[in-house]
Amino acid sequence: MTRRSLLALLLGLPLSAQAQQGEVVRAQGTSFRLTTFASGLERPWGAAVLPDGRLLVTERPGRLRLLSADGAVSPPLAGVPSVEAARQGGLLDVALAPDFATTREVFLCHAMLVQGGALTRLTRARLAENSRGLEEVRPVLDATPPQSSGRLHYGCRIAFGRDGHLFLSTGDRYETKERAQRLDDLAGKVLRLTRDGRVPADNPFVGRVAPEARGQGLARPEIWSYGHRNPQGLALNPWTGSLWAAEFGARGGDEVNLIRPGANYGWPLVSHGVDYDGSRIGTGRQTAPGVTEPLFHWTPSVSPSGIAFYDGAAFPSWRGSLFLAALNPPGLVRLSTEGDRVTGEERLLFDRGIRMRHVVVAPDGALLVLTDEARGRILRLSPG
Amino acid sequence: MTRRSLLALLLGLPLSAQAQQGEVVRAQGTSFRLTTFASGLERPWGAAVLPDGRLLVTERPGRLRLLSADGAVSPPLAGVPSVEAARQGGLLDVALAPDFATTREVFLCHAMLVQGGALTRLTRARLAENSRGLEEVRPVLDATPPQSSGRLHYGCRIAFGRDGHLFLSTGDRYETKERAQRLDDLAGKVLRLTRDGRVPADNPFVGRVAPEARGQGLARPEIWSYGHRNPQGLALNPWTGSLWAAEFGARGGDEVNLIRPGANYGWPLVSHGVDYDGSRIGTGRQTAPGVTEPLFHWTPSVSPSGIAFYDGAAFPSWRGSLFLAALNPPGLVRLSTEGDRVTGEERLLFDRGIRMRHVVVAPDGALLVLTDEARGRILRLSPG
Repeated sequence: MTRRSLLALLLGLPLSAQAQQGEVVRAQGTSFRLTTFASGLERPWGAAVLPDGRLLVTERPGRLRLLSADGAVSPPLAGVPSVEAARQGGLLDVALAPDFATTREVFLCHAMLVQGGALTRLTRARLAENSRGLEEVRPVLDATPPQSSGRLHYGCRIAFGRDGHLFLSTGDRYETKERAQRLDDLAGKVLRLTRDGRVPADNPFVGRVAPEARGQGLARPEIWSYGHRNPQGLALNPWTGSLWAAEFGARGGDEVNLIRPGANYGWPLVSHGVDYDGSRIGTGRQTAPGVTEPLFHWTPSVSPSGIAFYDGAAFPSWRGSLFLAALNPPGLVRLSTEGDRVTGEERLLFDRGIRMRHVVVAPDGALLVLTDEARGRILRLSPG
Repeated sequence: MTRRSLLALLLGLPLSAQAQQGEVVRAQGTSFRLTTFASGLERPWGAAVLPDGRLLVTERPGRLRLLSADGAVSPPLAGVPSVEAARQGGLLDVALAPDFATTREVFLCHAMLVQGGALTRLTRARLAENSRGLEEVRPVLDATPPQSSGRLHYGCRIAFGRDGHLFLSTGDRYETKERAQRLDDLAGKVLRLTRDGRVPADNPFVGRVAPEARGQGLARPEIWSYGHRNPQGLALNPWTGSLWAAEFGARGGDEVNLIRPGANYGWPLVSHGVDYDGSRIGTGRQTAPGVTEPLFHWTPSVSPSGIAFYDGAAFPSWRGSLFLAALNPPGLVRLSTEGDRVTGEERLLFDRGIRMRHVVVAPDGALLVLTDEARGRILRLSPG
């Protein structure tokens, strides 16, 4: 009996032969074996692959776990900060510092209750040598101001640029979507920080005044781009070095954006979608002067959450693709890309009814897909 | 009683108040009124808007009709060539010569039985002054060689370039898909001819040898591009002047292509789809050296037939879009474009189960959609 099946037995989890053996799914240009890599995770949201092949995985209610290379799930790690877990909040993303191999530093993004309400917080910590907990846990950034009402649209995905700087996406907090256009406000933005949490001197709004503040207030220097609604996908294109982001529209108007410094992505002035009740967003137009158009947009929605570029060796025909975990309709979207362009779309596993939250590439080139389920799983797509 | 409802009464056609009044459909960024512009057409396939607002429409079994600006359907026009109407054949596209206003010349593309089998034929004719028939009907080009087996994949869409030259798409004839790669063969190509049917001197294969013929045979000089499967969509981008084409893949791998002179679009060496039985196409790869990648591809298929760029005034938010009539799943696809790029997708009317064959823009900016039905209709999308 493997450690994994023993653990499954102890936890009383179903672990059928089918899940072990998997099934072969034919896709275009390739086929893959679909297996359950891990189960027993409550709404897994973020994941980071360690240099030794293990996987750090967040559970939205506030737990962080380490998965062995064969999918065995550890007990919750100690030292994880308390998070605000209502509605769309919780412990959301996890990312390794670029120098993790020597520093063991990790970054967490999560919802947090502070004086005045809830906000998106970035936290830095060190993974203990025994890997059983976090040490030196320190908040790095709060996407202020906090918001008293609602617990929605935190954004919260982390990525690193080639220069080692950190990008963090934040949501518009839903009820107050106009925050996305304010330069004196960190909601509805992509932020950029140095590896140790300072503001890089070449950030686009350093020393600039926020127009909304009528010349009284400075723009927040952490802002890299603005006008975002709820970006939960953020990844560096490994071939071009560009930052790509995915965000949910309301009804229709989901977007993939090429993130440029200082650019305005238009929310909530313009959108390719409409509001949930069918009413217009902002001006009712899809574009406006000074607004950067998406690289790609969908109507109706696919609700893209986490994204990953595929540069693995296991699926040669998938190299150059961007994968997006889709919540609704649920499935896995593969976009073909050429440079910083989208050139095609394949929809995988849309017949399963499994809401997908995030996708990461394993060291062996397999794809690992986190499912948004109370009894969540990590699915594995490997050659077969 | 209007002429149209009188005609409908005489023809015994259903013409409900609902079809007259239509319904208002909410789309993203706009809403539109959906009405039945015309009915009683058997599998309409191609359409051309006359300068006076009337519409020439082909019916696949071999009829050509003229529709008044309010949708009244004429009796079949006289003088239409006999066509081979089995399976996917028939009278397919119709296009006006660029100087139609003075010459009254039209071009027809249709399937034809000749010695040795069936092929795609381009025919030129003059619309009689009384508009009741065709005169001076002359074949212009046969996409030789004819094929004895099968009656599939004729391609057959006509478009004109800014220089007045004519483009014609031809299909691979299905059973013999390798023909698409042969330069001594007109199947599976986009062809280019002068307005009067000659070969332009600057066509890319003029005077070149066809490699397949082992140095013995010349390439067909009519060829503009090759490696196409079954392109039924062909339209000039009005903003860039580029030629765009849409073609069906087999299972998955439908494509929108930017047509460049001399370029190879890969069929059947490579495809983003697989064959109907799930087996690989050609090398099983999606790309190959020397093969031009599609601008956009879909998996699963939408089965795009006719296409039209929208430059009308009625729907400002649709300007810059490419519409594609989709057969399966049936509906209308709107692609956002920027220059010669695809930047987004909206799916309209996919809840109706109506196979759509072609789409054209009416002079007033309404969209007219030909339905692929035995009792076919032309649907009208107008502001509402």
